[in-house]
Amino acid sequence: MEVDEIIEGIFSGNKRALARAITYVENDYPEGKEILKRIYSKTGKAHIVGLTGFPGVGKSTIVSKLTQEFRKRDKKIGIIAVDPGSPFTGGALLGDRLRMDGFDSSKPLWIDPGVFFRSMSSRGRAGGLAAKTGDVARLMDAFGFDIILIETVGAGQSEVDIIEVADTSIVIMMPETGDEIQMHKAGILEIGDIYVVNKADLGGAEKTEKWLKTMLMMDQETVSLLEKTTHRDESLVESGKIYEVLHKKGWMPPVILTIAERGKGIKELADAIEEHFKFLKSSNLIVEKRKRRMSRELFDLIMDEIKKELTAGKLNYKEIVDKVVKNELDPHTAAEMLVKKMLG
Amino acid sequence: MEVDEIIEGIFSGNKRALARAITYVENDYPEGKEILKRIYSKTGKAHIVGLTGFPGVGKSTIVSKLTQEFRKRDKKIGIIAVDPGSPFTGGALLGDRLRMDGFDSSKPLWIDPGVFFRSMSSRGRAGGLAAKTGDVARLMDAFGFDIILIETVGAGQSEVDIIEVADTSIVIMMPETGDEIQMHKAGILEIGDIYVVNKADLGGAEKTEKWLKTMLMMDQETVSLLEKTTHRDESLVESGKIYEVLHKKGWMPPVILTIAERGKGIKELADAIEEHFKFLKSSNLIVEKRKRRMSRELFDLIMDEIKKELTAGKLNYKEIVDKVVKNELDPHTAAEMLVKKMLG
Repeated sequence: MEVDEIIEGIFSGNKRALARAITYVENDYPEGKEILKRIYSKTGKAHIVGLTGFPGVGKSTIVSKLTQEFRKRDKKIGIIAVDPGSPFTGGALLGDRLRMDGFDSSKPLWIDPGVFFRSMSSRGRAGGLAAKTGDVARLMDAFGFDIILIETVGAGQSEVDIIEVADTSIVIMMPETGDEIQMHKAGILEIGDIYVVNKADLGGAEKTEKWLKTMLMMDQETVSLLEKTTHRDESLVESGKIYEVLHKKGWMPPVILTIAERGKGIKELADAIEEHFKFLKSSNLIVEKRKRRMSRELFDLIMDEIKKELTAGKLNYKEIVDKVVKNELDPHTAAEMLVKKMLG
Repeated sequence: MEVDEIIEGIFSGNKRALARAITYVENDYPEGKEILKRIYSKTGKAHIVGLTGFPGVGKSTIVSKLTQEFRKRDKKIGIIAVDPGSPFTGGALLGDRLRMDGFDSSKPLWIDPGVFFRSMSSRGRAGGLAAKTGDVARLMDAFGFDIILIETVGAGQSEVDIIEVADTSIVIMMPETGDEIQMHKAGILEIGDIYVVNKADLGGAEKTEKWLKTMLMMDQETVSLLEKTTHRDESLVESGKIYEVLHKKGWMPPVILTIAERGKGIKELADAIEEHFKFLKSSNLIVEKRKRRMSRELFDLIMDEIKKELTAGKLNYKEIVDKVVKNELDPHTAAEMLVKKMLG
């Protein structure tokens, strides 16, 4: 397929064209970049929703049931399953679920024309995976999906990076498994716009709910404190924690108990997702959030270009490295030299 | 203390000056950079040894006992304890060990003039922590320590990054705890130059040893296969896996059983460490290894400079981000524009 044909296909609802475009983007083909450039003006409409949580908490079931629920609400759903840890298993479980579930037995989600599923897994570095997930979401956005669900396994930095592609982040856990502690350590507890305690029938769900609510209240207090004491940092590439907290101003993340396997709590979750999107739009936080994301993304793209420049040889990068290794030049001075050279 | 005074202090064995320099470097003071530049020509002599493994495997005990052993061999030892996951706990355990252990009771390692201990913990991003660990090791190197031991907790990407600062990487595990699987998943099993199965009295140690040896043999076979089929990738900033394997050419990582608490196997471990350093030097792999590390480090420093340039405002970065958010410009074109502008 030619680029023109693919782009036309994406705009006219041809799933094969979408799949091809995703493959090009995933594999870094120049065609992928070309397509991304040309569809970009048609993006920005979809609601991008990220879901994360440790293996076994029932993410796939939730994604599948949510898809059913949103289909009933007449939304078209794109789904991306990402497994940063593995080059192989990305989305296998979710794929199976989608084959099983349907909103009537004659039409499993897998063949529903209003649903598109794609799995992605680790190739190279995690940072790159986050960028690619964003690009794939953009392709789905241009295609016309209303909601794009990104499921990611685990709760490490890579997952945080991937979930930051989303407008709405959902953190899923199980009652009393100690996930809270692990997630807290991984810095993932701060990123949720919505919290889900799944398998709420296992007992201890109320305790986990209460713990979460207490923690979230403390967060809110931090926000008001920060408002009084600090200026918002306008720098574009800072580490983001305070910024993240400030972003939640006016939104108290709900904690939703679900038993996804039996469909319990799924309606409430779908409502909360739609509500959060409304909130983002009415408060204009969506623009801020996307601006921040775009700034990061641009920065990464620029770094890629600079990398190419360095390895292209014109700047004598290798010779300079040699000098540093021989202790004839220190790395800080070398970096300054190279940057001066690059920037003219 | 003035920069001149600190530098003089470092070269004349003043630990207070060293401690001060480290603080400057850790906190990104301009004085830190100045000091690093000026001591650089005196570095490159120390043997940098990284140790990693999950919490509880006995890393701190091993580091402490190794320090004792190396002191007997008349080596001066710098120790860095890094905890990428925590802003608080870095090295607390190891600090306690060093207070307890000594090669005679009158002289605990803590006050031994031939030993220097410093802990570092998470501030900001993990990437930055690796770079800083390298810089701190460099300060210790310039001070005159023969061996610098870097202990890092856990086995995630941050630990891999930190351990890549080292000439010799040691992976520590316990028998039959399933650590192998976890480490394999984290990509940390490939990075060891020496493997330690500690707490070998717990039973199952031989099984773990055997498993490790099988895996290492397979690695060696991969090396010979790669030699026949691929050219070494000369690109400076690739992801490094194949490169890493090729680096091990000629070195079969030993697996050493230890019961560190009782000092068992520590001599053998110290021998292996010294042997690996000899191997690196005689094969000249040390130059290659350090070249690769330096290339990465330089690249990171350059990125920092570019970041400053972007946020400084001359390039209208913010305005361009705004345009992209408004869908008036796509990010790929925007990145190309900015790079073109930057590179003149």
